[in-house]
Amino acid sequence: MKVAILGYGTVGSGVYEIITNGKSEELKNIEVKSVFARSRDKMHLATDDINEIINDDEISVVVECLGGLNPAYEFIKRSLESGKHVVTANKAVAAKYLDEFVSLAKENNVKFIFEASVGGGIPWLVNLERTRRVDEINRVYGIFNGTSNYILDNMYRNEQEFDSTLKTAQDLGYAEADPSADIDGGDVINKIILSNALAFDIHIEPNFPTYSMRNITKNDIDYLKKYDYAVKYIGETNVADGKYETSVMLSIFDKGSQEAAVELNNNIITLDGSFIGELKFYGQGAGKLPTGNAIVQDIVDIYSNIPRKDVVIKNELVQSNELTSKKYLLRSSSELAGELIESIEKYENEFYIKTKEISLNQLRELTKELEEKDDKYLVAKFH
Amino acid sequence: MKVAILGYGTVGSGVYEIITNGKSEELKNIEVKSVFARSRDKMHLATDDINEIINDDEISVVVECLGGLNPAYEFIKRSLESGKHVVTANKAVAAKYLDEFVSLAKENNVKFIFEASVGGGIPWLVNLERTRRVDEINRVYGIFNGTSNYILDNMYRNEQEFDSTLKTAQDLGYAEADPSADIDGGDVINKIILSNALAFDIHIEPNFPTYSMRNITKNDIDYLKKYDYAVKYIGETNVADGKYETSVMLSIFDKGSQEAAVELNNNIITLDGSFIGELKFYGQGAGKLPTGNAIVQDIVDIYSNIPRKDVVIKNELVQSNELTSKKYLLRSSSELAGELIESIEKYENEFYIKTKEISLNQLRELTKELEEKDDKYLVAKFH
Repeated sequence: MKVAILGYGTVGSGVYEIITNGKSEELKNIEVKSVFARSRDKMHLATDDINEIINDDEISVVVECLGGLNPAYEFIKRSLESGKHVVTANKAVAAKYLDEFVSLAKENNVKFIFEASVGGGIPWLVNLERTRRVDEINRVYGIFNGTSNYILDNMYRNEQEFDSTLKTAQDLGYAEADPSADIDGGDVINKIILSNALAFDIHIEPNFPTYSMRNITKNDIDYLKKYDYAVKYIGETNVADGKYETSVMLSIFDKGSQEAAVELNNNIITLDGSFIGELKFYGQGAGKLPTGNAIVQDIVDIYSNIPRKDVVIKNELVQSNELTSKKYLLRSSSELAGELIESIEKYENEFYIKTKEISLNQLRELTKELEEKDDKYLVAKFH
Repeated sequence: MKVAILGYGTVGSGVYEIITNGKSEELKNIEVKSVFARSRDKMHLATDDINEIINDDEISVVVECLGGLNPAYEFIKRSLESGKHVVTANKAVAAKYLDEFVSLAKENNVKFIFEASVGGGIPWLVNLERTRRVDEINRVYGIFNGTSNYILDNMYRNEQEFDSTLKTAQDLGYAEADPSADIDGGDVINKIILSNALAFDIHIEPNFPTYSMRNITKNDIDYLKKYDYAVKYIGETNVADGKYETSVMLSIFDKGSQEAAVELNNNIITLDGSFIGELKFYGQGAGKLPTGNAIVQDIVDIYSNIPRKDVVIKNELVQSNELTSKKYLLRSSSELAGELIESIEKYENEFYIKTKEISLNQLRELTKELEEKDDKYLVAKFH
């Protein structure tokens, strides 16, 4: 079976390396025929003409590793339309155009698979899909973003400020020069949207409560440490009674929990099923070989005719921000009063405000009030 | 597709409940036709005549939930010979007769699958199998036994002695009246043997270094806590250079590790692949619905014609107890001397003896020496 790889950066070159060096029976029958890249100097199979790939009937699988929306959107669309399977690690384009890609794949009797787009090397989506054959899923949540975890873990262990930790992450190549996607929620938003599609058959808009982790300080970490808490950046969806509730925000875990123990840029993602209870999947959420590995697994599924279930978007669930009641921690230079507040503690000139068990809508009221007083305020959920 | 369940205890009744109450498309097409159980009072589908099941051509899958070696061995054998697929949660019979069952299944063109036998509800073996399509596995290790973890977690958190904690576990139904299989290694031995088969194509004898956890005391836990360590009962296999090394023993983890964070009777199992690095799988390792769920997943694979790879035992690796060098902690009322010892600390009238980095064979020399002096000695690996 012949495949083409679009893009020869970290992930694309990882896919090439794994297919070329892999020793399993399956991999011996898979061949990279062409690579879409700017220059042949980088890679002997390179072409900068996408039509050479689209029009090549020998190529049955297109692996999109370009990232971003354009030209990834166009190339995926044209590949599916020309009857080629598409495998991608690109969560942005997959989350935005999921419906369209799923329909196009179905019309053209090919697969659109995106395991590597969520959790990198962790076999998360495939296990979600498998779980659903037997069980109903009530909840998914987890550390979906390695960069944010790297920053929080470093702040926790090395008692550093956010800015210097971010700079270290950038120097090591874990964080982009513009870190917004990782620390303001964009990346986790896309990953929870894609997880929702496989867990709950919904393709949702990115309009759910999302709070950046940008304002977290050494003082916040110190305050939480005092109570044996760790804080992680979490995407979460709960489902009950025909409703779903999705959010992305900092979340507070007991120091002895699985989530608190996730170091460096690793990920951990949990599903909760009616029969199975909580299953957790831990591993490297990014990187050349882990992400490349997940893509190659998708290719092997296609090669081996493994019946990966078509994503079916039913959108039968209704969005709600009133589904769960949680306690939240707000930190600000200003105080808050009112019946939603349980207690306030002053620590190093900041107010740490603990709410009663409230809904996400009630949280939004409180944070709107804070925003006007203090644009550096922080919000975190007691998980 | 019609199935028969052999045994209607915890697991068997869980399988029945999931198949009967499950809402997925797949489960609607699966029907329990017969249950092998002593009395119809317990279950309206019950028969106490195994021949009724073996001779029923409508039944294409036999689910063995009897446990133990006999009559499970005979019933599995006869089911495979009569052209029925067999799904089992019985690690004892699967580990002992693996070669024979695998050959019989192949000859009769049916499947022998045993997902639930290792890790209960955790999709461990299926993910091992999947990983190997692309990657080479170097190592598997983990907390395979929930009862031992329940005891160690309780001793750690509640500062209890081993005996009283074991009694609590027995009262709660987590531990058997005869707890030997859980705390002396038998259960983990079977599970690591089965994991080895899927990870490394070897079917090994249970003759590898195995140390009971029976002698652990509150004093040991206190001593380890002083250094921020937790201790867990671990099965582990390392592979390199055409050799394998398997062991079952207490292992010491940093307090902030994923393993240390595993509470109650949960399991966590890790694989380490050349491309993928460490993947960890966490969940309930036992129980009616989790284990039942894993069995029903195997049944759905058969129903859906998912090409589960046949287990192929090649036995190309040679056993070695010299593959890794680790530090070990020995605790005894007697001292040890010699060049393998790094340091000795006295704590509450016991000697805590830390070794240099030594092989498993060297460890065996030391523990033989200890055995003669003190039959209550303890050994644990620094993981």
